[in-house]
Amino acid sequence: MAWNTNLRWRLPLACLLLQVAMVVLFGVFVRYNPDSDPHWVEKDGHRNFSGDLDNDFYYRYPSFQDVHVMIFVGFGFLMTFLKRYGYGSVGFNFLLAAFGIQWAVLMQGWFHSFHDGYIFVGVENLINADFCVGSVCVAFGAILGKVSPVQLLVMTLFQVTLFSVNEFILLSLLHVKDAGGSMTIHTFGAYFGLTVTWILYRPNLSQSKERDGPVYHSDLFAMIGTLFLWMYWPSFNSAVSHHGDAQHRAAINTYYSLAACVLTSVALSSALHKKGKLDMVHIQNATLAGGVAVGTAAEMVLMPYGSLIVGFICGIVSTLGFVYLSPFLESHLRIQDTCGIHNLHGMPGIIGGIVGAVTAACATTAVYGQEGLAHAFDTEGPTWSASTQGGFQAAGIFVSLAMALGGGVLVGCILKLPIWGQPADENCFEDAVYWEVPEEHKNEGLHPEDSTLKPSEP
Amino acid sequence: MAWNTNLRWRLPLACLLLQVAMVVLFGVFVRYNPDSDPHWVEKDGHRNFSGDLDNDFYYRYPSFQDVHVMIFVGFGFLMTFLKRYGYGSVGFNFLLAAFGIQWAVLMQGWFHSFHDGYIFVGVENLINADFCVGSVCVAFGAILGKVSPVQLLVMTLFQVTLFSVNEFILLSLLHVKDAGGSMTIHTFGAYFGLTVTWILYRPNLSQSKERDGPVYHSDLFAMIGTLFLWMYWPSFNSAVSHHGDAQHRAAINTYYSLAACVLTSVALSSALHKKGKLDMVHIQNATLAGGVAVGTAAEMVLMPYGSLIVGFICGIVSTLGFVYLSPFLESHLRIQDTCGIHNLHGMPGIIGGIVGAVTAACATTAVYGQEGLAHAFDTEGPTWSASTQGGFQAAGIFVSLAMALGGGVLVGCILKLPIWGQPADENCFEDAVYWEVPEEHKNEGLHPEDSTLKPSEP
Amino acid sequence: MAWNTNLRWRLPLACLLLQVAMVVLFGVFVRYNPDSDPHWVEKDGHRNFSGDLDNDFYYRYPSFQDVHVMIFVGFGFLMTFLKRYGYGSVGFNFLLAAFGIQWAVLMQGWFHSFHDGYIFVGVENLINADFCVGSVCVAFGAILGKVSPVQLLVMTLFQVTLFSVNEFILLSLLHVKDAGGSMTIHTFGAYFGLTVTWILYRPNLSQSKERDGPVYHSDLFAMIGTLFLWMYWPSFNSAVSHHGDAQHRAAINTYYSLAACVLTSVALSSALHKKGKLDMVHIQNATLAGGVAVGTAAEMVLMPYGSLIVGFICGIVSTLGFVYLSPFLESHLRIQDTCGIHNLHGMPGIIGGIVGAVTAACATTAVYGQEGLAHAFDTEGPTWSASTQGGFQAAGIFVSLAMALGGGVLVGCILKLPIWGQPADENCFEDAVYWEVPEEHKNEGLHPEDSTLKPSEP
Repeated sequence: MAWNTNLRWRLPLACLLLQVAMVVLFGVFVRYNPDSDPHWVEKDGHRNFSGDLDNDFYYRYPSFQDVHVMIFVGFGFLMTFLKRYGYGSVGFNFLLAAFGIQWAVLMQGWFHSFHDGYIFVGVENLINADFCVGSVCVAFGAILGKVSPVQLLVMTLFQVTLFSVNEFILLSLLHVKDAGGSMTIHTFGAYFGLTVTWILYRPNLSQSKERDGPVYHSDLFAMIGTLFLWMYWPSFNSAVSHHGDAQHRAAINTYYSLAACVLTSVALSSALHKKGKLDMVHIQNATLAGGVAVGTAAEMVLMPYGSLIVGFICGIVSTLGFVYLSPFLESHLRIQDTCGIHNLHGMPGIIGGIVGAVTAACATTAVYGQEGLAHAFDTEGPTWSASTQGGFQAAGIFVSLAMALGGGVLVGCILKLPIWGQPADENCFEDAVYWEVPEEHKNEGLHPEDSTLKPSEP
Repeated sequence: MAWNTNLRWRLPLACLLLQVAMVVLFGVFVRYNPDSDPHWVEKDGHRNFSGDLDNDFYYRYPSFQDVHVMIFVGFGFLMTFLKRYGYGSVGFNFLLAAFGIQWAVLMQGWFHSFHDGYIFVGVENLINADFCVGSVCVAFGAILGKVSPVQLLVMTLFQVTLFSVNEFILLSLLHVKDAGGSMTIHTFGAYFGLTVTWILYRPNLSQSKERDGPVYHSDLFAMIGTLFLWMYWPSFNSAVSHHGDAQHRAAINTYYSLAACVLTSVALSSALHKKGKLDMVHIQNATLAGGVAVGTAAEMVLMPYGSLIVGFICGIVSTLGFVYLSPFLESHLRIQDTCGIHNLHGMPGIIGGIVGAVTAACATTAVYGQEGLAHAFDTEGPTWSASTQGGFQAAGIFVSLAMALGGGVLVGCILKLPIWGQPADENCFEDAVYWEVPEEHKNEGLHPEDSTLKPSEP
Repeated sequence: MAWNTNLRWRLPLACLLLQVAMVVLFGVFVRYNPDSDPHWVEKDGHRNFSGDLDNDFYYRYPSFQDVHVMIFVGFGFLMTFLKRYGYGSVGFNFLLAAFGIQWAVLMQGWFHSFHDGYIFVGVENLINADFCVGSVCVAFGAILGKVSPVQLLVMTLFQVTLFSVNEFILLSLLHVKDAGGSMTIHTFGAYFGLTVTWILYRPNLSQSKERDGPVYHSDLFAMIGTLFLWMYWPSFNSAVSHHGDAQHRAAINTYYSLAACVLTSVALSSALHKKGKLDMVHIQNATLAGGVAVGTAAEMVLMPYGSLIVGFICGIVSTLGFVYLSPFLESHLRIQDTCGIHNLHGMPGIIGGIVGAVTAACATTAVYGQEGLAHAFDTEGPTWSASTQGGFQAAGIFVSLAMALGGGVLVGCILKLPIWGQPADENCFEDAVYWEVPEEHKNEGLHPEDSTLKPSEP
């Protein structure tokens, strides 16, 4: 089946309409918060403080920049492993994230920063918007190479909305702690994306399979993404934690979990290959599972050895998933998961939710101290107990899953409409469909499949 | 025409002489400022403060590092899009920036940090030196692939000097606000570079046109540059703003402007292609115009929606420039602008200057508060008014343009002397002229034009 | 000679055993330090302080992240210059560093953070662990392409141990200052690695020489590593200095030394080529020598011009080393140094130790102030004098060299055992030995030597 993939009017219209809507909504709703407003200097004068450092900017901005790198370079380059989809990986990720962060500021703002008719923004809103978009980047991994940029913008519009609703339910109604987003970002993003790709099942995708893999250099580009995600993940999990010990502890725990995860990923990758050779897919992806899986518990007293154990397990689970589960999902459940997000974000996200629930349920004043416990959890209500907190944490996993599956079906059906300029089954994983590609490629003989490229324009 | 491109004596002599001069001048003039001097601990002891955080290092250093990445990786890799000029792009950018930051510390120091015969340096001097070099990197984009490294060192020597004079006129005489450098860095750098390339016009450059373009992988390398520039631009525009709300606000405004710019760049790129395909040149460059254009106003109360509007417009203007204006400039005005800096830095820089002037002219105590207005602008003089400030801001644009054009003619004429080892017209955009290049290339058949490479040595 | 390079059991076993040991040891020994413990909030309440910023996290974390990038992206990509060893360079560096940072936290913890039977960890421990692993990354450079990942894990286990002993002798017994690790990291790491590669001498390595070099794109990947090392080196040398002026000064000095080093490296690279062309090897490596050589003295009052002089000299020494000394070492002393670490870390490390000794010996109260001197050096003992400090600093160089040579012989002999799955002489510098490599390569004709690849499995 061949759709019309000429996006000349659809993509510009989609971009311009969405951007005009953002301008109008920002004009109506978005204002500077006290820390970024020029009146801050007056407020500051009232405090008995010799410096300007009580501006939240100095607590959050370095972490924000690290998270920002993860979203744009981390996710963008991680997906460049495909031999002929580097432009689409980096470029479409750039596009959807640039739109998503604007829409997320609004959606999250209405839920969390809305006062007197305005959304008041500061650096923490930027971090949370990046987080929200992170879940879209995760879902993008499942459908990478099989959708048009118009579809990605539509998906982003809906997914950011659903993310914000889910986040509101978890954080504000269930009072769940999830600073690094094991549930809100990874579990939700992964199962949402898997549901979408399940709905968008392509029976003849095998016709594009010669492009569904790396060349030598594309795997090195992907390692840029992997390493920036891996290195900055401690910032990701600590970026919106409480100032002080919580932020400090979240970074430490994430650092250890990720370190352990590398060793077990390597171990399994070698053990599962008949000649003991390592597979770049595992090194690029499974090594990150440890960061996903401490997303909820990193700011809690998980202990360094606890973090190592979580990373240890996730490196194994994730690599096993790539070797055994992904092929099974594709052949038996018709889930075509380009980047294997189920292994990197799905299973580790659920593990992360469970670890968080257990860790919360074990919280005691002996470990945290009276003040520390009150600081770490919202224990003000008369009914708070560690086991209740653990129960709500566990409930958060199920809510996230339900939102992901329900939302994924809805959005998948919308994206299935034959109006978005999606590529034909035999033209997937191919930049030339949506990008002006340098001529030389044809002469290099790198891509003999180019001759089979059938542009769908009439 | 063939020059001698053997740099064996010229390049080493230029480097060593300049570096020896730097050592001597630093020895005579440069000292640590109070925050980096060991006596700081005494000063600190006199304050009623329990921490060490009132050292400017902690306010500025994270931003400095982000700016540093933009100059060396951002600009360096942005220019690697050419198929055969990756070494020159990254390597010469590295060389000129490493020299430029030293010379800039001296030049800017004499104008702004000079007391009792010494220049006192701290982290803010490092940021400003990087900024100054940023304008050289911009100008380098216009002449990329057509000059020798000796020419680049000469240009850097002169451009840093002119930059510092222009900056002094704007900041110290006209009391212009330009924290992100729309005028001082981008407008000045772009029109300086365009004037230089106009003087250095090469009538037979078409003989190198088979190398004046990307291959698939080189476009991905360039995206590394684009993304690091895009991600860290909020740090760039906020790095030297006042502590507190101004720095906070500058980061937020830049973030939004850049986000909007991506969507309109994509929209126009697709709309202007006959099959609706995206062009990597636009994605690599036009998406950054929003950062340039809020360089002046980012720390002011531009408002988030104002930032979106600026980014919106600049994405459109910049992409239109790449499609229509650059070919016109080359064919009719003999301005050969390799990287299209007129579209990324020239027009957006002027827009940025105008936006800054208008925003400053609209500043009121209602918006800023009494103290806030005094903090944001230097309102101490009895004659200060918002409209005066706006007028001086506007004057700053014209001064920057005049300095750029005048300086560009002067430096262009100097660089035109046939003594600097510049490449022949048919050997432009070719690393093999100045670099030892791996042999394999010839066997790969990637570059059949290699056989036409005519080394100019006798 | 052909060994069995199938690692199917050896690599997984090594990884899993080491990781299990880490989990157990962390469980027994590692606890949060006061700044990352939930009781911190109580401690904080006792202070007369309105913010949360007296947590060490905010002083150290941005520097930590920069150092982290240097270890994983910096060293990892710096070594991707080899045409067929990109996976191994990035991937094995990732593996050994992920293990090394865990083991280093323990080893350094027992020496420096051990109280009441526990190691208390915070962000400074993470930085120091990264530093320790940096010395392993340095040593890896000497044996790159010639060892199996199992050998690397074994080497990391021993080298981290020896590093920690050496560091303890220098910092705690000799009271040496070495914040940027000229001696502990670079001198020790380089001469350790050189000794190991000397023991592992491969007489028939020339059979792999067609792969012992770059292709065009691999040199650009390597520049990513170079630039991130270069840009973040100021963070490296200042990361664990005293808060305030020392940290500030260390960053400034390193910045200047590196800038000067670029110019002299370029000068020598061109002067030593018969046609004056630049060699990427020098640009990738010698430009960094200035950062190595101010590792000890950066936090002292080296003065900006002093830093320029150090960088000036090291760019020259390092480039000369690549051109003349490395070939001599290989042909006459049987030291096969793949990355030329002797030129980047060995000689500059020793220079750094000497510069540190001289700078310390020249410290006076006139320059530092009474308080400043006490703050910069541990002058509390009654016998402290600047010349004593200088003497101990000099002694530190010799201790580091002795530990490196002795340890290198020991570890080299262990690694020489024919049980670790090392590659045959004719299969060095080849990813296909340990990695699943994309098929396309064979068709690209890039690597005709593939047909000569002789897998050693029976």
